[in-house]
Amino acid sequence: MLSDIEIAQSARCKPIGEIAAELGIPEEALIPYGKNKAKVDLNFYRTLSDRKDGKLILVTATTPTAAGEGKTTVTIGLTQGLVKRGKKAMLCLREPSLGPCFGVKGGAAGGGYSQVLPMEDINLHFTGDIHAVGVAHNLLAAMIDNHIQQGNQLNIDPRTVTWRRVVDMNDRALRHVVIGLGGKADGVPRETGFDITVASEVMAILCLAESISDLKERLSRVVVAKTYDGKPITAGQLKAHGAMAALLKEAIQPNLVQTIEHVPAFVHGGPFANIAHGTNSIIATKMALKLRDYVVVEAGFASDLGAEKFMDIVSPYGGFNPQAVVVVTTIRALKLHGGVPKERLSEENLDALRSGIANLEAHIDNMSQFGVPVVVALNRFVADTDAEIDMVRSAASAKGAPVALAEVWAKGGDGGLELADLVLKALEGGSNYKKLYDWDLPLKEKVNVIATKVYGADGVDFSPGASKALTELEEMGYGGLPVCMAKTQMSLSDQPELKGRPKGFRINVREVRLSAGAGFVVAICGSIMTMPGLPKSPAAERIDIDDQGRITGLF
Amino acid sequence: MLSDIEIAQSARCKPIGEIAAELGIPEEALIPYGKNKAKVDLNFYRTLSDRKDGKLILVTATTPTAAGEGKTTVTIGLTQGLVKRGKKAMLCLREPSLGPCFGVKGGAAGGGYSQVLPMEDINLHFTGDIHAVGVAHNLLAAMIDNHIQQGNQLNIDPRTVTWRRVVDMNDRALRHVVIGLGGKADGVPRETGFDITVASEVMAILCLAESISDLKERLSRVVVAKTYDGKPITAGQLKAHGAMAALLKEAIQPNLVQTIEHVPAFVHGGPFANIAHGTNSIIATKMALKLRDYVVVEAGFASDLGAEKFMDIVSPYGGFNPQAVVVVTTIRALKLHGGVPKERLSEENLDALRSGIANLEAHIDNMSQFGVPVVVALNRFVADTDAEIDMVRSAASAKGAPVALAEVWAKGGDGGLELADLVLKALEGGSNYKKLYDWDLPLKEKVNVIATKVYGADGVDFSPGASKALTELEEMGYGGLPVCMAKTQMSLSDQPELKGRPKGFRINVREVRLSAGAGFVVAICGSIMTMPGLPKSPAAERIDIDDQGRITGLF
Repeated sequence: MLSDIEIAQSARCKPIGEIAAELGIPEEALIPYGKNKAKVDLNFYRTLSDRKDGKLILVTATTPTAAGEGKTTVTIGLTQGLVKRGKKAMLCLREPSLGPCFGVKGGAAGGGYSQVLPMEDINLHFTGDIHAVGVAHNLLAAMIDNHIQQGNQLNIDPRTVTWRRVVDMNDRALRHVVIGLGGKADGVPRETGFDITVASEVMAILCLAESISDLKERLSRVVVAKTYDGKPITAGQLKAHGAMAALLKEAIQPNLVQTIEHVPAFVHGGPFANIAHGTNSIIATKMALKLRDYVVVEAGFASDLGAEKFMDIVSPYGGFNPQAVVVVTTIRALKLHGGVPKERLSEENLDALRSGIANLEAHIDNMSQFGVPVVVALNRFVADTDAEIDMVRSAASAKGAPVALAEVWAKGGDGGLELADLVLKALEGGSNYKKLYDWDLPLKEKVNVIATKVYGADGVDFSPGASKALTELEEMGYGGLPVCMAKTQMSLSDQPELKGRPKGFRINVREVRLSAGAGFVVAICGSIMTMPGLPKSPAAERIDIDDQGRITGLF
Repeated sequence: MLSDIEIAQSARCKPIGEIAAELGIPEEALIPYGKNKAKVDLNFYRTLSDRKDGKLILVTATTPTAAGEGKTTVTIGLTQGLVKRGKKAMLCLREPSLGPCFGVKGGAAGGGYSQVLPMEDINLHFTGDIHAVGVAHNLLAAMIDNHIQQGNQLNIDPRTVTWRRVVDMNDRALRHVVIGLGGKADGVPRETGFDITVASEVMAILCLAESISDLKERLSRVVVAKTYDGKPITAGQLKAHGAMAALLKEAIQPNLVQTIEHVPAFVHGGPFANIAHGTNSIIATKMALKLRDYVVVEAGFASDLGAEKFMDIVSPYGGFNPQAVVVVTTIRALKLHGGVPKERLSEENLDALRSGIANLEAHIDNMSQFGVPVVVALNRFVADTDAEIDMVRSAASAKGAPVALAEVWAKGGDGGLELADLVLKALEGGSNYKKLYDWDLPLKEKVNVIATKVYGADGVDFSPGASKALTELEEMGYGGLPVCMAKTQMSLSDQPELKGRPKGFRINVREVRLSAGAGFVVAICGSIMTMPGLPKSPAAERIDIDDQGRITGLF
């Protein structure tokens, strides 16, 4: 069997100008990056304002396991299936972070015959967006320390600086650092640290901004520190937002690529789905909705994280009206949720599956609450038995969610036809999307709604620090923002070891952070990793390139 | 009068495909980055091997002053002048670092009617090369600390790690840091720091490599630390070089742009001219020599730094045969060297000029030693008087160097015709290039040759540490490398306050570093800044962008 990178390297891309022409994007609005990638000019987007929007389909999944669910692959395969059915469809994905490619992780561009191309480029520098986010972030960091160094007119308390620095690399030694050492000319010593670039609030802002002026406005609102008397200090007060926006001039424009079957795809923006909202840029989705009748969007992690945030944060900010949700799962993953050890997943085990299906049911329930029809995509593996498949089918049907078998890795769009048909049928029924909570509720109540209605918790406990911070945020006027939950993706609860559909637990909010520029309050449950480390034998050791520029060992 | 950015923004670029076609670069070898920038495929370069090389012209300058010499502007204007004379000519420049644009510095893409376009892009992210260098550098850094963290099989002494991290930002608070804090899972605590990305040895390597395999080979040789028993640890031992080279896949390909008069320019690679060699990539120059009859290349700082290194390091590595040297100067700068305060530069002052001309004479002498004809480009200012111009002319002529008046800022190529004519005449006479010292000499003797013959020093004093390090390097087998001097650019000596042509001084080598991958030994005289800081009121505060993507305040 060929590997993902071998399939990708043997595939032929169409010139990106052809893909753009099919979308009706004129040549002058296309900014090529090589032959197979292009950015689309924002000025072109403005010319589309009186067009009707296409239908928006959100792809989420059951709770991630070590078995993998293939959510990106299904997102791509579903869109290819829609196109095979003669529909005008495209998809929107997040762009992957480069750093993790050198750790343990493979790429994030789909797999098999449901990939976006060129996959090496997308997984490495792509069009430079993440580099631009990193520089914009670090410019603000440098301006903060420079302000303190040069007389500190704004009276910034160096102990309160929350704006860390970023690097697009798995580099654990940078998690906790002391900077400003070396003497008077070399800054004011203080403790801080580095996050991986995609964890930057600048990335979240880029993905929620609707225009350059909106971007600047959001950047100016970013809170980076407090004064000695406790007042927030913003990027705007440091006059950093204009230069930061200038650095993001290209990054804000959506990246157009194609799937292996030449279906158009925007791959744009890559915010985390825990400390941020976890979907591609609003601009890309909005533009896609103007260009196609059907737009498939993938949200990070499972329905309790990326999808909940898509419904409660992204859609209200973007003015979106999601029409259908696809929940991706596999029988292997559900058996893991049912307690089967990883090495025995190929054996039929209906008892474990029955128990694990509770996880799928929870995600169907979660999404149904938003008033949107749900379809289950069962990403098929060779070892799946008919009895297992039937069990998933009947459980999901009982929740009102039809199940399609997807074989998109091996068969591309042909393997996504059943799923495409069920999605089209679901769309016919219409939807009644509404967000789960009113943004005007007190912050604690918003957390409580998500914890009880989405996670299935009995309630929420706030640490004294978190309680105090929430009160302060409301006093400072940030109470009307939506809440972005930062929680483990490995469980519906905040305890990663609780698989399936846990009951009888409470959510613990340990810490609260403000993302005033992005426009949400982050409630942190447990410890959230914003800087990964490399494993003992990093993937980097096996990556190579030959004189023809052919990369090996990347995936 | 229009500013540089206003002139740039009102200029029209030709589609980059047209510029490439004029050079005979076929469309399939061109990798576009937007409409006006492209990379040229390295595979195309290999098809040119049996072509004859064009003539190589090096541009250097007198010792930098606060008055500015306009070396890049003259480099561009000269090439435009050559094209106006019907010659097939192009130029090669370094690509500027993004970080300093937010400090005090303007752009580095020429000025007025002698600019390379698109200037905002070139000064900001351009085609992402510097970002790629930064990530490749930081991958190696992460792999070093990860190796120490994960059992330290190679027995690396953490106190000896010389490989710092980099960021493309003026950020003085990162000069000296302690990393690896936070506990057992977060690395091994140690002291280190950050440099600005262009100071990375990876940048020097990229600019000296001739192919991807040469790049990998050089990367593998990089020495990053020592073992507890004093043996060098290389990037190759850490198995980092393949992945680093993969990250530089696009960065190694030359960037093609155009001047404001549509003359082709490679802008590629940007190593420092103190701790590194200070000229654009060997690959870009080699490709240019195959494509045009005349290739103009600019070296960093004055003849004692970039130009000396071009003759003694770059040309031997690249197999170049420089045919003529242009020394750029201004009457204002020479008057500063003669002791005139900056606010009185517009007044005629023949006594000060006579004294300052000694600096010009030194640079003419320096370049003549290499067996190459020298032409002086006097970059003209309105306040220059005829008497002053005559004085420069006769002094330079006495040294065998004809003087051309250049008015390239205001008049573009028309203002460079006199210079172009003198250069063409100099080329007719032929040249007899030879490097200044034999690479087989002991390291100290190589330093001594440069200090006495180029700087005019009476001799060299080595600190005990530097002496010991040089002995060690020779014992380890690095004695045959050329020497790259890291010295202030503000004086021919190692004391920035000594203007003109200082006499009776000695050079002090304080420290020695090995750039085994780039292929030179760095001798550091005085303190060399590898991480700039921001000023009290950084340029970033005045940079802005509007909804049409138009940047203001950048230059």
